[in-house]
Amino acid sequence: MRHNFGAGPCILPQEVFRQASQAVLDFKDGLSILEISHRTPEFEAVVTEAVKLVKELLNVPEGYSVLFLQGGASLQFAMVPMNLLSEGQTASYLDTGVWANKAIKEVKYFGNAHIVASSKDANYTFIPKDYSIPEDSAYFHCTSNNTIYGTEMFSLPETNVPIVCDMSSDIMSRVIDVSKYDLIYAGAQKNIGPAGTTVVIVKDEILGKTTNKIPSMLDYTQHIGGGSMYNTPPVFSIYVAMLNLRWLKSKGGVAEIEKENIAKARTLYTEIDRNPLFKGTCAVEDRSRMNVCFVMEDKELEKEFLKLAEENGIEGIKGHRSVGGFRASIYNALSITSVHRLVELMQIFAEKHQK
Amino acid sequence: MRHNFGAGPCILPQEVFRQASQAVLDFKDGLSILEISHRTPEFEAVVTEAVKLVKELLNVPEGYSVLFLQGGASLQFAMVPMNLLSEGQTASYLDTGVWANKAIKEVKYFGNAHIVASSKDANYTFIPKDYSIPEDSAYFHCTSNNTIYGTEMFSLPETNVPIVCDMSSDIMSRVIDVSKYDLIYAGAQKNIGPAGTTVVIVKDEILGKTTNKIPSMLDYTQHIGGGSMYNTPPVFSIYVAMLNLRWLKSKGGVAEIEKENIAKARTLYTEIDRNPLFKGTCAVEDRSRMNVCFVMEDKELEKEFLKLAEENGIEGIKGHRSVGGFRASIYNALSITSVHRLVELMQIFAEKHQK
Repeated sequence: MRHNFGAGPCILPQEVFRQASQAVLDFKDGLSILEISHRTPEFEAVVTEAVKLVKELLNVPEGYSVLFLQGGASLQFAMVPMNLLSEGQTASYLDTGVWANKAIKEVKYFGNAHIVASSKDANYTFIPKDYSIPEDSAYFHCTSNNTIYGTEMFSLPETNVPIVCDMSSDIMSRVIDVSKYDLIYAGAQKNIGPAGTTVVIVKDEILGKTTNKIPSMLDYTQHIGGGSMYNTPPVFSIYVAMLNLRWLKSKGGVAEIEKENIAKARTLYTEIDRNPLFKGTCAVEDRSRMNVCFVMEDKELEKEFLKLAEENGIEGIKGHRSVGGFRASIYNALSITSVHRLVELMQIFAEKHQK
Repeated sequence: MRHNFGAGPCILPQEVFRQASQAVLDFKDGLSILEISHRTPEFEAVVTEAVKLVKELLNVPEGYSVLFLQGGASLQFAMVPMNLLSEGQTASYLDTGVWANKAIKEVKYFGNAHIVASSKDANYTFIPKDYSIPEDSAYFHCTSNNTIYGTEMFSLPETNVPIVCDMSSDIMSRVIDVSKYDLIYAGAQKNIGPAGTTVVIVKDEILGKTTNKIPSMLDYTQHIGGGSMYNTPPVFSIYVAMLNLRWLKSKGGVAEIEKENIAKARTLYTEIDRNPLFKGTCAVEDRSRMNVCFVMEDKELEKEFLKLAEENGIEGIKGHRSVGGFRASIYNALSITSVHRLVELMQIFAEKHQK
């Protein structure tokens, strides 16, 4: 059995793979999902259901639009300031890692970025908490989960400034109160679906206020008007996202999966804290439930453990180069069985090396 | 048997569907193509091969880069002027239909558009030919095939101005001389692969000259630097495009498929011209080999023929609302058997109604 702990694109449920594979052969009357027009009633129903599932699973309030776009979170880094900022205005950003930085970098084309706080000096091993957001910020931007460093924001700052959040790597993993956010975006390729589409949840009333000239494809209002079909959408990616969201609903929704995610994370962090060979890299209160980062004192032993893990079907746990060690990504579709297998190997490894 | 004459997303080879379906279940060691990291050597090899196949099949000269991006041709409508135009400069556009118009509309955010010629007054039933391109144009933009109206450009104007071409619906269908173009773009979902990726072929030396401030994701040079992986690419769409380009190569490449496309188009247009019930909608010399548009005098008969066609497995031949009648899209993967079936039905229908 393979245990895919990869950081993303990442594991999705096996039944989603089976359904997607079948639809590539025959989606409707012998036609493949890859050859049907996006304007067929059958595909329009897919988009409608995918949007409905996002709204239902996250309990999205009235007054918000849900979009399936292209370009990943990276394109959102530019679309957010393009749509929400005007020349001379400032947006506030919380710097919690590489992806937050990439978002900050794109602001300069449209206005100014003010960094309210940063944990850069500590290699982003914690989420800054005591900071103030200037009242005149056009918006406040944060990254809810930092895949590279394994930190996650479990609370939002109190502010009257509109909140924009890059939720790429923990959306659909835990219950959130969407009404606290003005815009949420997420590349699909963690808990939503495969790579190739991006979900945007936007409060309608914040749009249409910028003085920026926005090209059509970069204008949220155009996509809202087109019902995510302003142009040909990424048909297959949206279809598989719909299948995956259906699966999540059938599992009991976000509240249920959150319980499983808490159990998986607790199991793994407990072993990291218990096992004398391993240690966690992040502040305990900021530890991500999606990406568990840990290291060993001895780099040679790290190589040996990685080899042992790979020989036992554990995929994708090599840490990002900026942290080193290991990163076990334990997204929604990863079963606790896989976590138990990893923990078991950590225990076997420790026993062997403590003799 | 189904005959998919849809305009796009459209038919792809059955063997591509079979391979893609299998890879959704097992791409590598039991892992799905939907769950592997884009940074695995196996997927990097896919991107490398896809780029190599584009270069090989179109005989792309040295000094050009090939990119697989997201956002469709619609995002290119903005990226082209953003990257190639500077404030105060003018680009020349040939207006051959709705898509050309959408491209023209995006120029205003970055500079000025000059329309060299238009066939709008004739409902775009021909490609304008006698026009001059101002020498000081930053570039000249044209649409090589107009899916809605069924016209195709078989020759380029003589000019020293850089040529940019939206080749979404006829790329890979006929031999072209890439060296005559400075930038070619194409949404994949006709002859390249499924929806969700966009191919850009760009002459490197035309880049980096604009004074525009270009956000990273909209900057061709960033994507060239990242080898089409500046951010997470649309993994599955690129994979299927690679499979489809492999199929095209195995068929003998673009020169061979062009012969088939000529034969298919000739077969269908011959019947349209012969059959007293049907008539073509476009100037004969500009008739597209990809999208064959034709109408009947009697709208009631059109409904009846559409019904007959659908009952016989002919999919997607209803014409676009702006032309009416029928549009038979006969892309690379559509076999001449399907064209023969359509022609046969046209003959049966004519016989019935001429008694």
